[in-house]
Amino acid sequence: MADASRHDRTARQLRLLSDALDTGRLGPVRRLINTLSPAEIANLLESLPTPKRSLVWGLVDPEDDGEVLVHVGEDVRESLIAEMDPDELVAAVEDLDIDDLADIAEDLPDQVIEEVLRSMDRENRDRLEQVLTSLLTHEASTPINELIDDEQSAIAAGTGEREVANQFSDHDWVSAPVVDENNILLGRITIDDVVDIIREQAEHQALGAAGLGEDEDLFSPVGRAMRRRLVWLFVNLCTAFIAANVVGQFEGTIDKLVALAVLMPMVAGLGGNAGTQVLALTIRGLALGQVGASNVMILLWKELRVALFNGLLMGAVLGLIVLAWFRNVGLSMVISVALTANLLLAAVVGVTIPLLLKRMGFDPALGSGIFLTALTDSLGFFTFLGLATLLLLG
Amino acid sequence: MADASRHDRTARQLRLLSDALDTGRLGPVRRLINTLSPAEIANLLESLPTPKRSLVWGLVDPEDDGEVLVHVGEDVRESLIAEMDPDELVAAVEDLDIDDLADIAEDLPDQVIEEVLRSMDRENRDRLEQVLTSLLTHEASTPINELIDDEQSAIAAGTGEREVANQFSDHDWVSAPVVDENNILLGRITIDDVVDIIREQAEHQALGAAGLGEDEDLFSPVGRAMRRRLVWLFVNLCTAFIAANVVGQFEGTIDKLVALAVLMPMVAGLGGNAGTQVLALTIRGLALGQVGASNVMILLWKELRVALFNGLLMGAVLGLIVLAWFRNVGLSMVISVALTANLLLAAVVGVTIPLLLKRMGFDPALGSGIFLTALTDSLGFFTFLGLATLLLLG
Repeated sequence: MADASRHDRTARQLRLLSDALDTGRLGPVRRLINTLSPAEIANLLESLPTPKRSLVWGLVDPEDDGEVLVHVGEDVRESLIAEMDPDELVAAVEDLDIDDLADIAEDLPDQVIEEVLRSMDRENRDRLEQVLTSLLTHEASTPINELIDDEQSAIAAGTGEREVANQFSDHDWVSAPVVDENNILLGRITIDDVVDIIREQAEHQALGAAGLGEDEDLFSPVGRAMRRRLVWLFVNLCTAFIAANVVGQFEGTIDKLVALAVLMPMVAGLGGNAGTQVLALTIRGLALGQVGASNVMILLWKELRVALFNGLLMGAVLGLIVLAWFRNVGLSMVISVALTANLLLAAVVGVTIPLLLKRMGFDPALGSGIFLTALTDSLGFFTFLGLATLLLLG
Repeated sequence: MADASRHDRTARQLRLLSDALDTGRLGPVRRLINTLSPAEIANLLESLPTPKRSLVWGLVDPEDDGEVLVHVGEDVRESLIAEMDPDELVAAVEDLDIDDLADIAEDLPDQVIEEVLRSMDRENRDRLEQVLTSLLTHEASTPINELIDDEQSAIAAGTGEREVANQFSDHDWVSAPVVDENNILLGRITIDDVVDIIREQAEHQALGAAGLGEDEDLFSPVGRAMRRRLVWLFVNLCTAFIAANVVGQFEGTIDKLVALAVLMPMVAGLGGNAGTQVLALTIRGLALGQVGASNVMILLWKELRVALFNGLLMGAVLGLIVLAWFRNVGLSMVISVALTANLLLAAVVGVTIPLLLKRMGFDPALGSGIFLTALTDSLGFFTFLGLATLLLLG
């Protein structure tokens, strides 16, 4: 397995490191680290819990410090920077490429940035300042009068990173010039930066639906991890209250037929998982620019048909099992219909939530899973308990 | 917004296309398509529902057909290939790079592959056959006696694509030689292929947790989409029965205190969402090779502490609200304790499921979300209803 290979290598390095660190013999650790590229060291540091991470960070060759800082996620970078004094930091970052320096600048103390700017020549300082302000309207004070290669389109300064990645991917570029609004060359973006952007986007979708950011550190301090997750758990607490209130409206019905309490989580849960499938597909479509006003209704119509057929089939199976279990024909029919209805609602919700979040100016992925299950729970309970009240206790 | 830029462009193209297709005037459509790169055409085709997709596919310049086939996802590729006759297919793919041809070979009819092989010179035919067998033990019959550049490590034929992507990313390569077991050069992998691999991996994690593949077509035929989703919905139906059975054991308890039915979905749902956060973090750690035997216990210990603190805090808030709502001190205490317990269980399950799936030889992401909610539901119901039975009805 491909994954196993890197996994095994990192695991072996981690084991060697752990053993060496436990014995307190740092020589072998330093030798191991010095055989790795800065990106590999970054990967290793992200794999280490905080105390060992500090120790290993102290053993990295100072020449590699800057590149390692560029390659780690933001949370880990902050923890590494916190252990360095300003002089070390200046030495580590002053020889970085302008684009890398711009990437990590917001995590550096102001005095370090000022020191680095002072040590630069005028031309680089202007370029860095331009990148940092990220304003298309900021005029370059020392234009670099280099003309753009006619064969290669240029990227405008201020273009978002997702758009840059899409352009590289669409045109198989390995490098592209960046120009200001006067078509003056500011620098070049190279494919290695784009690979990093694409990785981050990937992680963003995977972690975003659960309400986490792509820079989340595997071993972040407990207090920090707690606070970030709490935000979404509190949102979830509020949505769960809405669902509980729906059930509360039907207390009398449940009191008369306790089997409803046994079966209602099935309707809600199946709707939640079916909706999650639609959600994942829609979020990917939005990220790739493939879902828009011209085709959203066609997508919804397709998902409604899938939901209808799956709902009828699963509803029939579930109905038969419920009939065998509770020997109640009415209950069996109610759960069949409620399941089909909830899968249809899940299709609508799965297509709609990311589009609504985007329309309202939010990230279409962020927290979408929590909003989806809130709706499939509430609507699932309402449909199932409502139908039962009407048809079984009428 | 960066995303908006490509999104808007694709949306504008889609609108223009839709309008032109509706009027039946195909000239403007053809002109629009011919301004796009093959990757952009692929993106556009993936955005179109089936009937319009067929129409537009017929308007693509035949010279671009091969490259477009390489860039679309597997499902869409199959639907495009189904509309071409063998001669068109041979003409479309015979000039592709060997690596691109190998990528799409499994979707081509056998007679087309044979025809393409016949039209190749001996050297390329041997290389293609070697790539298609993917066997390290297969000896090249016509060795290319080109020596490897000492400065660049070579990649062994048969190395998995995830590992290749990791090596490019770690070393900032833009190209790397591929060699067989005798160190004989078979060809080169270039960064544009790696960008595609990374995108696919990204989509794999995002869609895999919901039980979908990264090649899922936004507008796949309803029957096909139905069958794929049904597999996981049936798995989910089975796990939901387990949860329903847990609740069924406590029918007597619920009969005496219907408020339990109102509140039990909150305990289960909050556990599910908290567990999904841990799951997303663990799957990413596994994909990057950052989680292994040496640190999994430290990760688990961190997640348990986060869960404990969040559980105590959320449990206290929930307990107070339940006290105000139902005026029942015992019930309020039971739900506080049950929520904390379920968040602790969710942490264990979120770390464990991907590791267990991997240990058993499965993909750590695939269907993990469904297994997680199965456990957080069952265990959440058991803890809450079990504690209520012991403490409130004792």
